[in-house]
Amino acid sequence: MGSAFGQLFRISTWGESHGGGVGVVVDGCPPLIPLTEEDIQIDLDRRRPGQSEITTPRNEEDKAEILSGTFEGRTLGSPIAILVRNKDARPEAYSEMSEKFRPSHADYTYQAKYGIRNWQGGGRSSARETIGRVAAAAIAKKVITRLFAPNLEILPYVESIGTIGARVDTATVTREMIESNIVRTGDPNAVQAMIDLIKEVRSDGNSVGGVVACVIRNVPVGLGMPVFDRLEADLAKGMLSLPATKGFEIGSGFSGTTMTGREHNDAFRMEEGRVRTTSNRSGGVQGGISNGEDIFFRVAFKPTATIMTSQDTVTTDFQDTELKGRGRHDACVLPRAVPMVEAMAALVLVDHMLRQRALVGGSEAFS
Amino acid sequence: MGSAFGQLFRISTWGESHGGGVGVVVDGCPPLIPLTEEDIQIDLDRRRPGQSEITTPRNEEDKAEILSGTFEGRTLGSPIAILVRNKDARPEAYSEMSEKFRPSHADYTYQAKYGIRNWQGGGRSSARETIGRVAAAAIAKKVITRLFAPNLEILPYVESIGTIGARVDTATVTREMIESNIVRTGDPNAVQAMIDLIKEVRSDGNSVGGVVACVIRNVPVGLGMPVFDRLEADLAKGMLSLPATKGFEIGSGFSGTTMTGREHNDAFRMEEGRVRTTSNRSGGVQGGISNGEDIFFRVAFKPTATIMTSQDTVTTDFQDTELKGRGRHDACVLPRAVPMVEAMAALVLVDHMLRQRALVGGSEAFS
Amino acid sequence: MGSAFGQLFRISTWGESHGGGVGVVVDGCPPLIPLTEEDIQIDLDRRRPGQSEITTPRNEEDKAEILSGTFEGRTLGSPIAILVRNKDARPEAYSEMSEKFRPSHADYTYQAKYGIRNWQGGGRSSARETIGRVAAAAIAKKVITRLFAPNLEILPYVESIGTIGARVDTATVTREMIESNIVRTGDPNAVQAMIDLIKEVRSDGNSVGGVVACVIRNVPVGLGMPVFDRLEADLAKGMLSLPATKGFEIGSGFSGTTMTGREHNDAFRMEEGRVRTTSNRSGGVQGGISNGEDIFFRVAFKPTATIMTSQDTVTTDFQDTELKGRGRHDACVLPRAVPMVEAMAALVLVDHMLRQRALVGGSEAFS
Amino acid sequence: MGSAFGQLFRISTWGESHGGGVGVVVDGCPPLIPLTEEDIQIDLDRRRPGQSEITTPRNEEDKAEILSGTFEGRTLGSPIAILVRNKDARPEAYSEMSEKFRPSHADYTYQAKYGIRNWQGGGRSSARETIGRVAAAAIAKKVITRLFAPNLEILPYVESIGTIGARVDTATVTREMIESNIVRTGDPNAVQAMIDLIKEVRSDGNSVGGVVACVIRNVPVGLGMPVFDRLEADLAKGMLSLPATKGFEIGSGFSGTTMTGREHNDAFRMEEGRVRTTSNRSGGVQGGISNGEDIFFRVAFKPTATIMTSQDTVTTDFQDTELKGRGRHDACVLPRAVPMVEAMAALVLVDHMLRQRALVGGSEAFS
Repeated sequence: MGSAFGQLFRISTWGESHGGGVGVVVDGCPPLIPLTEEDIQIDLDRRRPGQSEITTPRNEEDKAEILSGTFEGRTLGSPIAILVRNKDARPEAYSEMSEKFRPSHADYTYQAKYGIRNWQGGGRSSARETIGRVAAAAIAKKVITRLFAPNLEILPYVESIGTIGARVDTATVTREMIESNIVRTGDPNAVQAMIDLIKEVRSDGNSVGGVVACVIRNVPVGLGMPVFDRLEADLAKGMLSLPATKGFEIGSGFSGTTMTGREHNDAFRMEEGRVRTTSNRSGGVQGGISNGEDIFFRVAFKPTATIMTSQDTVTTDFQDTELKGRGRHDACVLPRAVPMVEAMAALVLVDHMLRQRALVGGSEAFS
Repeated sequence: MGSAFGQLFRISTWGESHGGGVGVVVDGCPPLIPLTEEDIQIDLDRRRPGQSEITTPRNEEDKAEILSGTFEGRTLGSPIAILVRNKDARPEAYSEMSEKFRPSHADYTYQAKYGIRNWQGGGRSSARETIGRVAAAAIAKKVITRLFAPNLEILPYVESIGTIGARVDTATVTREMIESNIVRTGDPNAVQAMIDLIKEVRSDGNSVGGVVACVIRNVPVGLGMPVFDRLEADLAKGMLSLPATKGFEIGSGFSGTTMTGREHNDAFRMEEGRVRTTSNRSGGVQGGISNGEDIFFRVAFKPTATIMTSQDTVTTDFQDTELKGRGRHDACVLPRAVPMVEAMAALVLVDHMLRQRALVGGSEAFS
Repeated sequence: MGSAFGQLFRISTWGESHGGGVGVVVDGCPPLIPLTEEDIQIDLDRRRPGQSEITTPRNEEDKAEILSGTFEGRTLGSPIAILVRNKDARPEAYSEMSEKFRPSHADYTYQAKYGIRNWQGGGRSSARETIGRVAAAAIAKKVITRLFAPNLEILPYVESIGTIGARVDTATVTREMIESNIVRTGDPNAVQAMIDLIKEVRSDGNSVGGVVACVIRNVPVGLGMPVFDRLEADLAKGMLSLPATKGFEIGSGFSGTTMTGREHNDAFRMEEGRVRTTSNRSGGVQGGISNGEDIFFRVAFKPTATIMTSQDTVTTDFQDTELKGRGRHDACVLPRAVPMVEAMAALVLVDHMLRQRALVGGSEAFS
Repeated sequence: MGSAFGQLFRISTWGESHGGGVGVVVDGCPPLIPLTEEDIQIDLDRRRPGQSEITTPRNEEDKAEILSGTFEGRTLGSPIAILVRNKDARPEAYSEMSEKFRPSHADYTYQAKYGIRNWQGGGRSSARETIGRVAAAAIAKKVITRLFAPNLEILPYVESIGTIGARVDTATVTREMIESNIVRTGDPNAVQAMIDLIKEVRSDGNSVGGVVACVIRNVPVGLGMPVFDRLEADLAKGMLSLPATKGFEIGSGFSGTTMTGREHNDAFRMEEGRVRTTSNRSGGVQGGISNGEDIFFRVAFKPTATIMTSQDTVTTDFQDTELKGRGRHDACVLPRAVPMVEAMAALVLVDHMLRQRALVGGSEAFS
């Protein structure tokens, strides 16, 4: 248990970084949605290793095969199974890990929890596991735009890498702007400094973290299920379930805690026949339910744990020792984290759209 | 759907702020745990309104009645139903709300989602709903210490109110220190300034937010269910499901994003026969699983939405209008948020303890 | 865990036969459904003890109180909590049971499973627990007829008591016919013999079982979620979750196993523009999905375990002994089982209606 | 939704009869269980087509590939994905089905529910879907005997085919007796008559149904989760979720409804230090919880719907027409249903063993 996400659009991911492959089963996808392997491949290519000079050189083409759930190019309403084979596994690079726990990795906790671990890589804790999420989310996005919100856009971007921040106008940032640079930031002026920083820490055998921000536009009003399945609660869970994440904030977030209510409240005004707020410190969610304004949240990613420096650690038979990182890794996960954040956002949204449709009926309820 | 939390220790809360009452059903509590209404009342008293000069004057004694699931002072293993009647409801104070949406409240989104709302107060979005959580968590804490971790301590405290911060040593802070002041901060030197600030904003008809930090000590190794039900993911969801929350971070959180891996990694060392880390930027969780170090996280609470100032808003028939806050409200939710944070932490922990026991067996597995 | 039923219209029942009361929380009820306590009371009165000369004389008025989830006579979309207090509990009648396990009751298995039991009656295994189900189903039936199938009728009736069978035409039987007699059979000619049999076994300190049959008319096509949540699978689970049940069959059931495919198959024909079957050995379900024909199933109830005869049993400290039944019990549960079967059928149907609406949209999909 | 089964040992099956393949993901399997593909293949071979002269000649070797969740021959505690490719699919045999609904198949209801279906065979309604269940259950059986009940035996057998019944002593029947004949009945004297009947109806282009009975020995006391997840309720659901099933009964079943309580009750006696019942009309379950006696239940299977005779039906554009069966099918599903019944029983048991361990702790609780 623990490898499934969603109540109605329910995904079950499986697979270790070094093994037969990774994949996902999507149970609950509505029927009659056009779907091909190409739809999925586009997003897998955005998260795959080796895509640019600042990502890990591990070379996986990550080709998705749809094994079930479609017929003549459309979904059947039955489970959609997707398989991606592992190709470029080099378990020999990990032999030292069979006997030592890598600091700030999941080696020790997996061993302690399960009494066993696949030490030929990160196993389930590897970011490779997110392939299943990204594949499932490619389907989710098709369901969202086809059935519920044709103009909905999920736009995550790199807001900072280390101490280098981007200046991004959430109202105007576009997917094209974000995807036009290999960092996936929304600020053209920050791109080069970010690339330089990643290359610098990498050449130093070091790593660096950062923040992904995400704006979601054209969200229907009414998504979210109080009291526990508030929209922001499910977004927080989805984001914190991604590897290397340490924080989540929505709207004004932590900085809002220093404001007074008079400064913080979002006044309502009618605008073109719609209820709007004149500011958006709520981040598009009030009382756990989307209010139609842009959803805006931020996710903290820690620096990659694998560094090419000798570190103190312990052996699997509990002796103090040292370990130097090996293997092929990202010195900075942020560029590849962008499609992962997008995936989890899409999975949360589609699930709440189906739940809302169950509760109050067809798409007319989302007006 | 949406009012249940937990997989194995599953709670279902119910009740509006103005109605017959509020309560909870706990399904999945192990049998043979000593339990009386007093056990529950202690925590309800910590979250009840009117408990001090800086909380809302709404006067509710919030007396808990256990309706089922115990026999001769011990749990039966069957559902435990707990009822707290609403007493001091003054729906007339809310009559204006029947026709206007309060800014930054859930009035508009509830109306949009459900097509109906109980306008005599916050309904389900009221903090009054958390009574059920706090009551259930009082049981959860008994299960934790009796069956799984006798010395486990969950210690949330107010870290900041507005811009006034507390200096707290997470290694030494005690429940006594926190509960000894009505703000529930861990820093005696900050108490008076915090009280003064709350009184000041209240007298000004304004409100203020803040941060609750939480340290959890003596946590068993191995809690958390990768990949989606990582311990921090469930903590994040639990915290963001609380009213007025806008952010969550664990360990180094957002500030860790500016560090390099070399600075951030937690080295392992053997200490008294146990695997320990020499720093704790992980916040007690690695790869989604507790590593035995202190769990440390922070939760952002926005300023209370109810302010005694005229604000722009719209009517329920979609006309621009103004509204001035009425009713009895906390100018700052932080002191009462402390037991709520504690409750959600306990509910997450007990659920993962039961899940871990299902997976690998008895408490010996938690050594 | 184990006291919740349903995926989207999710009920959580609680309460022991001798304790503060019994009740239910319904999470997932759509908003805007007219609902009063009277709606619930009607069905509770059909299942309550003491309602006729052939049911147990335990006298409980079983008055339902709605504690939450409604406002001005309509559902809010939030959890609906319903409470029924226990009144006529006479725990002293059970004192002997504290030391002996009653044969064919749940005393021994509850003690073995939980290590504790409320011996002042049947605890959770008592039919009293079904109050929560019947109350929740009263709401479910309103949702069904208001949102999904205005003419849907769930008509369970007593088909046999002991060896006395009823001859009932499932095409014409009406609720009036069934409710016009205290046995709740659909055959006027069988009523007196059934009453006589119940009185006879009761005067003999004995008990008797029987079969409840159920026809459901005007069922929308398309309900049921292959492959595990087939409609008949969920009906089977619902029925076998009722106390004293030992069997379930749908359509041709066990007798269909002796037919050949040529005899058994239901041919399709167009009729008034609808796809119909010319026979209904399928019982209204094909491939786990309703086909629009009448759903027909049968449920076996064993004879009541409490008999006024000395029986061999063992003590709670594991010595052979004897026990003679005491307390007030039904000599035959069948008349009161009718509303329980109806309740579980309604709960299964409403849940699948909501699930189907989530999957394919509004009620137009159910044409 | 609908393709997952189990709360803690949770399986998600996927795949259509004609498509890329079929398979399953098992989430929640405990770690450290020895597991190889051979363990799974043994059971797949028992359910595969073409295994004997009385099963369908469709020739599928049904080779299982474990894609994840094991390492060096043992389970990791992570999801186990199993893939079986479809090989001998002949969709051309089904071309007529693209335009006509086969009587008593799921063609019409799938089309009505989803608005689309894979007409190249039965799609998800095909018995081919059960491959995933049988594969998952092979793992479940290893978990059961390794962690919870070393001597537990699940022994389903064919009790009747059409009107030909077997005489089987449930106390002495062995797996060897059952597997020694291609019908999988427990009565050597009935084998030839059953084979003859199957061949006879097949040569006539007809089909026949039957009953599978199942005895489970050496069951721990305490399995089952009242009130809804009673052990018999989950068994009933599991069995009725199998294709072609129409009924389930446990213990005395329908025949027990004609007995009196005095005849039906199972007296308790101490025997070799254990609480035993002197009869077993309860079928091994009391109050929804196993009592340690043999579990005994029966499952009704209807005659195969595919017959080689012209039958009335309708076209997909709603015109009356006729259809004659084609394709390769079993004239009687019973021999191959035996491993399917065994699979569902194992899946129900392992799930309840894990749930019971969560509730009350280690295996000592199962004594």
